[in-house]
Amino acid sequence: MLKRFLVPEKDRVYVKEEAARGATEMIFRKMGMTDEDATRSADVLLTSDLRGCESHGVSNMLRNYVALYGAGRQNPTPNIKVLRESPVSATLDADQGLGIQVGPQAMEMAIEKAETTGIGAVAIQNCGHVGMLAYYPLQAIKHDMIGVCMVSAGGGLQVPLWGSEPVFGTHPIAWGAPADKQPPFVFDVATTQVAANKLMLTRRIGSHLEPAWITGLDGEPIMDEVDSPNYGGFYMLPFGGTRENGGHKGYGFATIVDIMSGILSGNGPGFLAGGNQHSQFVMAIKIEAFLDAADFKADMDKLLERLSTMKPVEGQERVYYAGLIEHEEVQIRKEQGIPYHREVVDWFNQAAGELELNYSLP
Amino acid sequence: MLKRFLVPEKDRVYVKEEAARGATEMIFRKMGMTDEDATRSADVLLTSDLRGCESHGVSNMLRNYVALYGAGRQNPTPNIKVLRESPVSATLDADQGLGIQVGPQAMEMAIEKAETTGIGAVAIQNCGHVGMLAYYPLQAIKHDMIGVCMVSAGGGLQVPLWGSEPVFGTHPIAWGAPADKQPPFVFDVATTQVAANKLMLTRRIGSHLEPAWITGLDGEPIMDEVDSPNYGGFYMLPFGGTRENGGHKGYGFATIVDIMSGILSGNGPGFLAGGNQHSQFVMAIKIEAFLDAADFKADMDKLLERLSTMKPVEGQERVYYAGLIEHEEVQIRKEQGIPYHREVVDWFNQAAGELELNYSLP
Repeated sequence: MLKRFLVPEKDRVYVKEEAARGATEMIFRKMGMTDEDATRSADVLLTSDLRGCESHGVSNMLRNYVALYGAGRQNPTPNIKVLRESPVSATLDADQGLGIQVGPQAMEMAIEKAETTGIGAVAIQNCGHVGMLAYYPLQAIKHDMIGVCMVSAGGGLQVPLWGSEPVFGTHPIAWGAPADKQPPFVFDVATTQVAANKLMLTRRIGSHLEPAWITGLDGEPIMDEVDSPNYGGFYMLPFGGTRENGGHKGYGFATIVDIMSGILSGNGPGFLAGGNQHSQFVMAIKIEAFLDAADFKADMDKLLERLSTMKPVEGQERVYYAGLIEHEEVQIRKEQGIPYHREVVDWFNQAAGELELNYSLP
Repeated sequence: MLKRFLVPEKDRVYVKEEAARGATEMIFRKMGMTDEDATRSADVLLTSDLRGCESHGVSNMLRNYVALYGAGRQNPTPNIKVLRESPVSATLDADQGLGIQVGPQAMEMAIEKAETTGIGAVAIQNCGHVGMLAYYPLQAIKHDMIGVCMVSAGGGLQVPLWGSEPVFGTHPIAWGAPADKQPPFVFDVATTQVAANKLMLTRRIGSHLEPAWITGLDGEPIMDEVDSPNYGGFYMLPFGGTRENGGHKGYGFATIVDIMSGILSGNGPGFLAGGNQHSQFVMAIKIEAFLDAADFKADMDKLLERLSTMKPVEGQERVYYAGLIEHEEVQIRKEQGIPYHREVVDWFNQAAGELELNYSLP
């Protein structure tokens, strides 16, 4: 994560993972989730926070979920319907459950199919927020599988290259693969220049946006360093930004996500989906279907070691690969606690009072 | 394609598709290919030229292939071995056949598997040049399937973000999906800022490279507009170029390709593969495994029409989606002929003499 997204040191309160996890589970149970779903959903959020991806952890998301439940716009006890199924595939209706609640179950289903057939893919329509996408490939990696996840998050944020109107959300993609001794490769990116949640983070921590990250409401790229406007005051550019830097590539990947997640699940193109009607595509590929997993993982070690031990260009300390720094952050945060912004801890403790829950952070 | 890659009008010779196709097939047969393989391989090149992707058509590639056969470094009659197979997957050893010869057969195999099971994926090790990747999803689209292709093209060209040494090739990705009335979505991009073949095209047509497209041999990004150096005189940056414009995203997708194509096929990481030892991954996903193909294609029409009829930002004529302009170009070129550079036509006619073949272009 770029430094501009880190919580400033003076505002940090270190909270032990177990404490934040316990409080989060309590809140989900209070919202009406079963114990199992509360555990599952909290694990997605806490895994984000442990990996240093606080844009998708409890700090940005939990209060939104509570507000949605309060407004009756999210179903804590969804009746997940299987709309179509084959030995390699399934299409699910999530019945307006949270993505972080239904998604992990869908990936488990994909993994079971892949265990039997070699590949499993599940498309989900009609779900809520899906959280940090890296979570889903991480599930597959534990089973010596390659994991993929794509999410169509509506259509009101991202403009096509050269387009004046938004038709996509941030439409993220994640892809992961296991290694043997090296931490796994876990790639997780928005197809916009930056995740929308991260724009909102800059507002809390007082940093700026880069040129060609966002557009005005006429679709014209904003080429100055600006403060992040609020939702509704901007649109976002596909990654690459300009044509010369590959903006058509970001736009193309966003379209792939709209197709694989939105259209293939039956949720429809993002720009026609309702406000909280997200969709998700997950796929698990069993490595043994192609070659011995031990050989695959030995080659992964060779690649990942080559990348992470390479001499960096001048001015950079180190070359990373996707998932490496996040893996290291987990070790650190499991020991030191998660550095939340003090506002987040205040919110947790205030929520305990309002919801009559028996916890206190840190 | 950016205008800088077009053949200048004064150098264009229009050649009818059938004439170029016939000459190309003759050359492949002369190199030792079977009739069927010559037809198949020529179709990959001519489809590129018809789509306006001349960087991957006969002009850049055919003389390379002829040179490789001449040097005994490419096998015209490969004995394709099935190393592992399941109802959804296969791993092939291409026995040093050209990618454009073995790849279409691998995608046919994936399509047959997907027809039966819902998903089919084939990984190929030890093949030669794979041509324009869009060709492979186009095969799947004809069967109401989504098609995917990734190619690890060695390891000597692309540096990781912030890295000083190349470990990837241009490592392209293609993804396509059918629509009903709209031309299909067909996305095909290098994970570098630009395809290597296109850099070489700029040399023929005398245009410049953009800032942050390539690096020096120390990995430092070249931020000026420069003439393209020859192979061996530069490395390439992942798409996005800089961290702020998503260079880590291009780098991540390049890593995915190295894994899905190189490692999963058993070819190994690109940086350890031999000079002409490419690999390929193709996948076909049957839409009916998830929902009715008619519903999928109706939604595709809604998405693609929304994109292509949108008001562009100031200074742009039109918003495209991937595959649209290429589809239109096919109609034009089937009628008018393919605008080859006169040097290419000269090469063809010279080759006819040297190889004792009975054709003359245009």
